[in-house]
Amino acid sequence: MELNDLINHTSEWLKGTGPNSEIIISSRIRLARNLAKHPFSHRAKKPGQEEVLRSVEAGLADCHALKAALFLKLADLDEVDKQFLIERHLMSRDHALGDDHKGLAISDREIISVMINEEDHLRMQALQSGFNLRQAWQILDALDDELAAKVEYAFSNEWGYLTACPTNTGTGLRASVMAHLPALVMTKQINKVLQAIAKLGLTARGFYGEGTEAVGNFFQISNQVALGHSEDELIENLERIIRQVIEHEQNARDAMSRQDRMRLSDRIGRAFGTLQSAYIISSNETVDLLSSVRLGVDMDIVKDIDRSAVNELFILIQPAHLQKLEGKKLSSAERDVKRATLIRSKLIGNSHP
Amino acid sequence: MELNDLINHTSEWLKGTGPNSEIIISSRIRLARNLAKHPFSHRAKKPGQEEVLRSVEAGLADCHALKAALFLKLADLDEVDKQFLIERHLMSRDHALGDDHKGLAISDREIISVMINEEDHLRMQALQSGFNLRQAWQILDALDDELAAKVEYAFSNEWGYLTACPTNTGTGLRASVMAHLPALVMTKQINKVLQAIAKLGLTARGFYGEGTEAVGNFFQISNQVALGHSEDELIENLERIIRQVIEHEQNARDAMSRQDRMRLSDRIGRAFGTLQSAYIISSNETVDLLSSVRLGVDMDIVKDIDRSAVNELFILIQPAHLQKLEGKKLSSAERDVKRATLIRSKLIGNSHP
Repeated sequence: MELNDLINHTSEWLKGTGPNSEIIISSRIRLARNLAKHPFSHRAKKPGQEEVLRSVEAGLADCHALKAALFLKLADLDEVDKQFLIERHLMSRDHALGDDHKGLAISDREIISVMINEEDHLRMQALQSGFNLRQAWQILDALDDELAAKVEYAFSNEWGYLTACPTNTGTGLRASVMAHLPALVMTKQINKVLQAIAKLGLTARGFYGEGTEAVGNFFQISNQVALGHSEDELIENLERIIRQVIEHEQNARDAMSRQDRMRLSDRIGRAFGTLQSAYIISSNETVDLLSSVRLGVDMDIVKDIDRSAVNELFILIQPAHLQKLEGKKLSSAERDVKRATLIRSKLIGNSHP
Repeated sequence: MELNDLINHTSEWLKGTGPNSEIIISSRIRLARNLAKHPFSHRAKKPGQEEVLRSVEAGLADCHALKAALFLKLADLDEVDKQFLIERHLMSRDHALGDDHKGLAISDREIISVMINEEDHLRMQALQSGFNLRQAWQILDALDDELAAKVEYAFSNEWGYLTACPTNTGTGLRASVMAHLPALVMTKQINKVLQAIAKLGLTARGFYGEGTEAVGNFFQISNQVALGHSEDELIENLERIIRQVIEHEQNARDAMSRQDRMRLSDRIGRAFGTLQSAYIISSNETVDLLSSVRLGVDMDIVKDIDRSAVNELFILIQPAHLQKLEGKKLSSAERDVKRATLIRSKLIGNSHP
């Protein structure tokens, strides 16, 4: 597998299947790990970083889940490549800054990715489509067990796994879901829901995680602390709250459908029509309109286009993806034209709602 | 022919053919005539009006051009019928007010219509598609000659044809064209053009004539005076100025096409997409969007939909037309839904620009 092959396949987490996939796009488990007897990344010197990268790569290459994986060195990538990987949710923005012996491993279908020498020596994630934290956890837990037999983790009997930032110490686990909550936004209930989530010890972030805005009515909801509970307890707690969020969103959708389905159909139909016929379109406008179309698919108002095609468009319309597709650098104005062309080609032929 | 049959046919003037039909929708000649020895309409008593109606109807029924005509008495029509006829440009708003022995004759394909007992005893018009004032004049001149042999017109050797309002005295002629000037509006040159027109003794009005606003970038341009020149001179003068207006609009279209065809295509494409996919749409929004689509057809940006279909939609989406199509009274909110349904049914199946 090559980096440039990724764009030709739909990532596993975008398939639009799995439990509650009409509201929960994807589920993600991340583990932070560090090697024993090596300074944390931000204190490490170059030779030490190089050694960490080498031994982690060697260990990962031996693991069952990463047999066919793509191993990348950040130093080999240009800016568009890095942005492309961030857009696909395969690595963090921080990982793209500086390239001192940073590595990235990506498994088949992009289910697992592992950042090496990010804030921690290892940041491993598993992504699944729909509300499926258990499955993501099983996948990552298996990889973690396998890898633990090959490298020595920094672990304290008192604190658990040791990490660069104390909020990750303990389990090193962050569990999160990407929720699509357009009805809660439209009915202006979203702030109430987000406040309740915060009180329960969870955080809601934007489409690209920490520090990003909620575009397209997407909210990434995750646990705040990793310490004091087992992995199962942390996941169960998140699951319980997410089930409530799903119920609220579903109720809001039902109410809109009952009270004014025609106005909702109009909004969704116009969004679909605009996407099918624009010749110039910004990223922000696209994401807003795609959010309406996705809601239309989920509420059976838009037919003949499947959820995975809409999900995939959210990823493909991003700047680095457009440049990868075009095979060259594009200015912002050129991207707005390329984006509209791409969307038309993907949506036309699919009949109208 | 029955009143309700009209809606099933496209009027001759909406065919979208004829000279310069990419800019000039239609050409219209109107003649004002009164019968000798009868008081003008606003001074007439009921029995006198009845007599005028009877003798004009008898005269018209004998004329070649009105052999298969529909003869209506306004007193027999309900409010929706009257509004319907106004929307089709077959009679004036004034003619719908009060119904004291008012009549209306409509020829085959709606080429000719004659209002009886409007401001004048007779207001006859001929409509043609495109920039074709000569053809309209020939048609109406022939009818006028034929009718003059059957009824006696009020005529003065000094003043010409006598009319209720002195601005019509003389020839009784008003020549007008319905011009579609979106590029002059978009490029903000329209006011300069309208001011020049006014200085040359012409008037520009909205889609429904006197006292109406210019919606959808349509301007009805006509002569102001009917006295002091022959019919041919009046028509020639209007033609000369309209040729200049056409040239200005064409130059503005060419410039937009040269400078930013992509942005123009985007605007037109989005208008088409919205019309194809809305479920609720107001009359004003529709006319604005149809104006863009019509420009797209004229500039070969929108393909696979013909000009006559777009022209017809401008007429069909009006309130009384929607109610005629539905076969019952509709509230404003119901009309917005019916309008969207009608537009979708007419535009879908036609491929995207």
